[in-house]
Amino acid sequence: MNRSFEQTRSPVFSETDMAGIVHFASFFPYMEDCEHDFYRSLNLSVTDMHDDSGVNIGWPRVHASCDYKRPLRFEEPFIIKLTIQKIGKKTIEYNFDFTSTDKVITYATGSLIVVCVKFNESGMDSIEIPDNINALLINNTI
Amino acid sequence: MNRSFEQTRSPVFSETDMAGIVHFASFFPYMEDCEHDFYRSLNLSVTDMHDDSGVNIGWPRVHASCDYKRPLRFEEPFIIKLTIQKIGKKTIEYNFDFTSTDKVITYATGSLIVVCVKFNESGMDSIEIPDNINALLINNTI
Amino acid sequence: MNRSFEQTRSPVFSETDMAGIVHFASFFPYMEDCEHDFYRSLNLSVTDMHDDSGVNIGWPRVHASCDYKRPLRFEEPFIIKLTIQKIGKKTIEYNFDFTSTDKVITYATGSLIVVCVKFNESGMDSIEIPDNINALLINNTI
Amino acid sequence: MNRSFEQTRSPVFSETDMAGIVHFASFFPYMEDCEHDFYRSLNLSVTDMHDDSGVNIGWPRVHASCDYKRPLRFEEPFIIKLTIQKIGKKTIEYNFDFTSTDKVITYATGSLIVVCVKFNESGMDSIEIPDNINALLINNTI
Repeated sequence: MNRSFEQTRSPVFSETDMAGIVHFASFFPYMEDCEHDFYRSLNLSVTDMHDDSGVNIGWPRVHASCDYKRPLRFEEPFIIKLTIQKIGKKTIEYNFDFTSTDKVITYATGSLIVVCVKFNESGMDSIEIPDNINALLINNTI
Repeated sequence: MNRSFEQTRSPVFSETDMAGIVHFASFFPYMEDCEHDFYRSLNLSVTDMHDDSGVNIGWPRVHASCDYKRPLRFEEPFIIKLTIQKIGKKTIEYNFDFTSTDKVITYATGSLIVVCVKFNESGMDSIEIPDNINALLINNTI
Repeated sequence: MNRSFEQTRSPVFSETDMAGIVHFASFFPYMEDCEHDFYRSLNLSVTDMHDDSGVNIGWPRVHASCDYKRPLRFEEPFIIKLTIQKIGKKTIEYNFDFTSTDKVITYATGSLIVVCVKFNESGMDSIEIPDNINALLINNTI
Repeated sequence: MNRSFEQTRSPVFSETDMAGIVHFASFFPYMEDCEHDFYRSLNLSVTDMHDDSGVNIGWPRVHASCDYKRPLRFEEPFIIKLTIQKIGKKTIEYNFDFTSTDKVITYATGSLIVVCVKFNESGMDSIEIPDNINALLINNTI
């Protein structure tokens, strides 16, 4: 079974728009914060991750998508469930389910694909996901 | 040839993140504003559109996606090109190309699918795209 | 002593900017969400408040300000303390202190002034704060 | 007379909230972008400014405030007028007027105070505003 992680939150006022619902773009920071919270649950921070030799790595997004099923509203608590859908050589694909807290209503489903990079003087290079990170993601599979 | 529309803009400071580049979620309001600007170019406002009988219609998003190719930075002017990829019975699919102003660099490509709805007491119902809107979108094809 | 309420949270990635810190504008949604959370702690929602006769009331902002003392960073937990500074005939002034969780470091101090309104056909009119709301705010004073 | 600069823009959909108007926090990125646009009008970028000896300087905000007079709405064009209210030894105070394009309606007035800093290994130190910048701001007074 794929590894998963859940977060519960409620939309705040500034995330709504004049249609009276959560603005569609707000779902993307929701996904990212859930991903970061998943790493925090492993005592990791996305801004402080390293390979075995101590080189600083990062995870820029190469793909983001969301399919909207039902409007989500201010102060309506919801669950975001992150699932690690696929671990490639250099990339991780996360899926996200946005549901009511009783999981009866699905508001949206989303996806992020991130690529592992190391930073250098002039920018960044994509690299294979370091063994220590890979092991962490795979061995802890639920 | 599919209908298209272009907008030129530059990222502002609040759209950047601590990675020093435009945050990935910022591309979604860019797409939406380009769509709205396209309608403004037809003397229409998305918040004031009607079918032939005067019923108020709207365009909630059912899908949004973006593929990121190259980092986009503060004050780096770019072009967003909207293309109407497909007009269905009830939906419109827009594609978006984010490029440098000389069109040599592609920063990202994106997509929005919107569904036509009319508003009622309890919420909204999806409807077939009204003839007057359809005609406008098709007849003005470049 | 003035009534107060505290909330603990951490900045998320999308709230940072290319200077590597939380963008100054992010503090304003923080204040607003703390205000709304304060009302939730009283089993009230700002979007569903009424006077004694059942008329729907709202609280648009007439003033917002923030003084920045120290940079706040991604994943750095902090406390927002809301204090009801003054209850006028039609307005409430909230002050906010943004501190480290041990309250040693002050990141910022802020202020919101909101005015009580009732909604009508053409917009809204400012009104005196209803007795039931006033009583709630005063009687529950710590 | 104090130096001033004007920018015309229109609110986009993602800047609105469920009250149907521009969210109060949106005015702060408006002010900042107007400030940055003012510097662009002088062929300067806030992320690439230097003192006479070539040291990189920056302008973190120490104060931001806004007073709201009238609701501002989606696609309602408005003018932001920046005025340099005061140049201190280390700080600049900008005032902002948000008006309708005919200047009959004032939506809001705002203020930003920024401090001049130079960056070092451990963070940043406030410094006196470099002579070259001061000269530029004063000599070009309208």
